[in-house]
Amino acid sequence: VILYGRNPVREALKGRRRASVGEVWATEAAAREPWLSGREVRVVRRAEELSERCGSDSHQGVCAEAGSYPYVGVGELLGGNGQPLLVALDQVQDPQNLGSICRTAECAGVAGVVIPERRAAEVTPAVCKASAGAVEHLRIARAGNLADFMRRARERDFWCYGASAPDASEERRTVPYDEPDYKGGGVLLVLGSEGRGLRPLVARECDELIALPMLGKVQSLNVSAAAAALLYEILQQRGGGVDMAS
Amino acid sequence: VILYGRNPVREALKGRRRASVGEVWATEAAAREPWLSGREVRVVRRAEELSERCGSDSHQGVCAEAGSYPYVGVGELLGGNGQPLLVALDQVQDPQNLGSICRTAECAGVAGVVIPERRAAEVTPAVCKASAGAVEHLRIARAGNLADFMRRARERDFWCYGASAPDASEERRTVPYDEPDYKGGGVLLVLGSEGRGLRPLVARECDELIALPMLGKVQSLNVSAAAAALLYEILQQRGGGVDMAS
Repeated sequence: VILYGRNPVREALKGRRRASVGEVWATEAAAREPWLSGREVRVVRRAEELSERCGSDSHQGVCAEAGSYPYVGVGELLGGNGQPLLVALDQVQDPQNLGSICRTAECAGVAGVVIPERRAAEVTPAVCKASAGAVEHLRIARAGNLADFMRRARERDFWCYGASAPDASEERRTVPYDEPDYKGGGVLLVLGSEGRGLRPLVARECDELIALPMLGKVQSLNVSAAAAALLYEILQQRGGGVDMAS
Repeated sequence: VILYGRNPVREALKGRRRASVGEVWATEAAAREPWLSGREVRVVRRAEELSERCGSDSHQGVCAEAGSYPYVGVGELLGGNGQPLLVALDQVQDPQNLGSICRTAECAGVAGVVIPERRAAEVTPAVCKASAGAVEHLRIARAGNLADFMRRARERDFWCYGASAPDASEERRTVPYDEPDYKGGGVLLVLGSEGRGLRPLVARECDELIALPMLGKVQSLNVSAAAAALLYEILQQRGGGVDMAS
């Protein structure tokens, strides 16, 4: 694949998780940036050459040939020790949202993200760009069936929280997002697709449905905004701020 | 201006804040949607006609002629009673980010958003689209000088919090975002531009600099993700979740 943009290329080089990061092309200006020093760079004369190469105008003067995105296996996310915080995305379709959620997840110290194999955005160079390169440092797995994955997670003592609208279901209570106790134990936060939220078969696998208060007239947050508010609440309860404050 | 997309047109009609919402154009399919029933709609044969009209492919089958965006005066945001929560954006340039922050702000019940007159994204139809129409229900003011606005806010007993990176400044302490007491009194949350954060002259006007913990290798959140995490923390402390839980 052809990665493009400063952050994606820099983080791919730093992350060293792709099978290869091969040729780097850059404009003269970009080639002089410190993070590329000591690296062989093919300098192009016109930025348009980069646009043609990567198929986007958002390259910021640099792109690179790299191995495909190194997904991990779902077993790797569930198998570790400790009490990890994981995120699962149910059919998030928009590369911008997927990238943005991955960036927030990486910043919040999430141990891994699970996306479905079908009907969902994959980790393309556009997603890598939207994540500011964060996907290069984040473990992302693809699940054939998300409900199955959730069952496996629950068997391993993960508690599954599904993000929902306050009034999503009449049959089932949705609790305010700050009511559950997220401390201790593995936590899997499940977020639904942009338009429709969680599919019923995925919602059914959730131990609890949680909702952010909606005080305005527009009754739903963007999924990546919801992810940020929920992840930082969970992190706060789990003592994630301690490192920084010390 | 020409608004486009389902949410923007629907919310503009509902919000009734623009001087006018005139002709609505829609594809046959979109024209049959319930929210347009009883409304005169010009049905177009080809979706491309809408793209030409609004200059975007993201119209979802509908666009409408409307008066320009109805900004409010900065005095209106500062003058009210109560202890409002306001958001100020220091040179946020990306329409997608501005729209996304406005959507989150509207959902979180923010009383108003202030953007600078210069070197910042304005509330264009693209921003309206990115906000899912939330800007139609949100009070947004433009300030000639953001530092001046902050001084005025502080004179009226607002407490100004600037979002910052944990290690942004050696001279000045940045506190963890969940350390301040946001309850009681007016609160102004100030967020910086995508790349550079708060300008020094804006940071200087902040009573406190606050930071979200960064536990990963990518050391910054997208500004709209930071806005979501910070606004929901502030809302939670101020008891914003109570309505929903009841």
